[in-house]
Amino acid sequence: MGVVSAQLQVISYPQSKVRSTGFEVVEVELPALQPEQVLVRNTWTSVDPGLRLRLRKTAPAGYFTSFPLHAPMDGILTIGEVVESRAKGFTVGDTVWHAQGWRQYAVVDASVEQMNGLGTLKILDTTNTPPQWYLGPLGGMGLTAYAGLSVVRALDGGERVWVSAAAGAVGAIVAQIAVEMGHRVVASAGSAQKVSWLLDEVGVEGAFNYREESPRAALARLAPEGIDVYFDNVGGEHLEAALDAMRPFGRIALCGSVSDYELAAVGPRNLFLATAKNLTLAGFRGGAHVHLLDEMQNLLGTWLREGRMTYRETVYSGLENAPIAMRDMLAGRTIGKTLIRL
Amino acid sequence: MGVVSAQLQVISYPQSKVRSTGFEVVEVELPALQPEQVLVRNTWTSVDPGLRLRLRKTAPAGYFTSFPLHAPMDGILTIGEVVESRAKGFTVGDTVWHAQGWRQYAVVDASVEQMNGLGTLKILDTTNTPPQWYLGPLGGMGLTAYAGLSVVRALDGGERVWVSAAAGAVGAIVAQIAVEMGHRVVASAGSAQKVSWLLDEVGVEGAFNYREESPRAALARLAPEGIDVYFDNVGGEHLEAALDAMRPFGRIALCGSVSDYELAAVGPRNLFLATAKNLTLAGFRGGAHVHLLDEMQNLLGTWLREGRMTYRETVYSGLENAPIAMRDMLAGRTIGKTLIRL
Repeated sequence: MGVVSAQLQVISYPQSKVRSTGFEVVEVELPALQPEQVLVRNTWTSVDPGLRLRLRKTAPAGYFTSFPLHAPMDGILTIGEVVESRAKGFTVGDTVWHAQGWRQYAVVDASVEQMNGLGTLKILDTTNTPPQWYLGPLGGMGLTAYAGLSVVRALDGGERVWVSAAAGAVGAIVAQIAVEMGHRVVASAGSAQKVSWLLDEVGVEGAFNYREESPRAALARLAPEGIDVYFDNVGGEHLEAALDAMRPFGRIALCGSVSDYELAAVGPRNLFLATAKNLTLAGFRGGAHVHLLDEMQNLLGTWLREGRMTYRETVYSGLENAPIAMRDMLAGRTIGKTLIRL
Repeated sequence: MGVVSAQLQVISYPQSKVRSTGFEVVEVELPALQPEQVLVRNTWTSVDPGLRLRLRKTAPAGYFTSFPLHAPMDGILTIGEVVESRAKGFTVGDTVWHAQGWRQYAVVDASVEQMNGLGTLKILDTTNTPPQWYLGPLGGMGLTAYAGLSVVRALDGGERVWVSAAAGAVGAIVAQIAVEMGHRVVASAGSAQKVSWLLDEVGVEGAFNYREESPRAALARLAPEGIDVYFDNVGGEHLEAALDAMRPFGRIALCGSVSDYELAAVGPRNLFLATAKNLTLAGFRGGAHVHLLDEMQNLLGTWLREGRMTYRETVYSGLENAPIAMRDMLAGRTIGKTLIRL
């Protein structure tokens, strides 16, 4: 007899905006542990913008796969505690991460690679480190931020950098790394409160609320000499404004375009400026740069413990609130990393 | 008393398509030579797609400047013969290139850098080398082709490369370099005749006529496993098809988007695939890579003299036919490099 576990399942795909309907918490009996498996009681699970792309019958080719209906949702980074182990190297009580979130308990294959290695079952060092940091700045979000700055060769400082959605899970890390690295940072976000946080806590040189001022106008005001690096979390009008404002040989990290996830996508009409100004647009996913994980965790872990880096989270309790968490995050109503505490 | 020279001037900017009206051949008296100047009798001048962008009241920011009305058009690479010299190092009879085309005679400052160095007055080695090659494969076109392959790290061969507008001035050079380098090349062009030339003369593995078959369908047929490198001379639907067909970690050289020059530009609606597939889009201008000029001229010059590389040109005679040459080139009616013989 296996353990009985609650899990969140998708019942129907949202038509446009994600709402709190269309999901169901289902109780399932887990199979008994096989050799090389561990049973994990999940404690924290991650809510990422990319989830939206999987709540479709057909997910974008080459990206994540679609979540099947009436089935567990795989490939979501999660923290938990080992409660039973038949795998060498894993002991009851270990804090681990793995890729089977959005459920209470998970049977995890210890030796199967998940999410290009990022989601493979792994024991976490929780010395002076709250475990949920590994879902935020020390996990996929931190890796995405660090990898993005790496692919546009912006880890050395000394340039003018614009970060959009800079109060979001990835953006907030990017902005802080960029400030710590010695860049002159302009940040944008969607509320006055977020802008204040960026100026006062993160210490960016300039920040603006894109709901009050267009990115083009704000960049002309805050970075009249142009920008060298743009970290794009938004796409759409933001990306067009960046192409306009880029200095020659500028680089754009294409991290995601949340503005397109729920609407018909519009490409940047001024992409020709990339040719005119010798610009590079580098699309990337953190998961393609797992080789940077240790370097990132060492650096950001030190900054976090020393208080040089701020990390904020918006926490929802219980599986049944996961759809609400996702809805709120996609609508820009959460700050920092969005998490479910189980 | 200076020499009297005919020159082409813009009288009014074309509203949409370039037509043969709106230009005028004007006779002007040139100033007498000053020290460090030479008088050049032009023999060949270049007709490039980029000219279209300068036939506007406002040219794209950061790119070329607009041609002023009723004035000589500067910044056009041209071949000529020195007929009088007051500059050290230049002698009557030298074949040179410089940046003052579309006129019979030009007074050229020998020591002033033009076009990032590409158009600075320079003596050409015409041993076994027809001078007009320096306006085509050994000039800006060759540099653009070579630099584009360089910025997407495609000078080593062994990959699947798609070249659009592959019978055009730049595209034909790119396709041939790619074949010589050992890539598996798919090429596209706008007529059956051009497609035959690409298959039979250039030796690409596959080619298609985009007027008969959509790029998406053709790529699915000719490169079902996807493409690693796309050399974009077209933009629009071609670029979208490339983003769809790119393999993970693919690279796109953004050389120009002639499809947008005369119409309202449409950005690629599927740019998000750059993130999903870790793609890089590298905008570039040949003029930003003048450091590659000697390397390119040595390599391509050898291939041309050995007959390993084909070079075609469409030649119009006389300044008065320059507007017709430009109109025909933009409409895709010319093959290879478009030139004016003066």
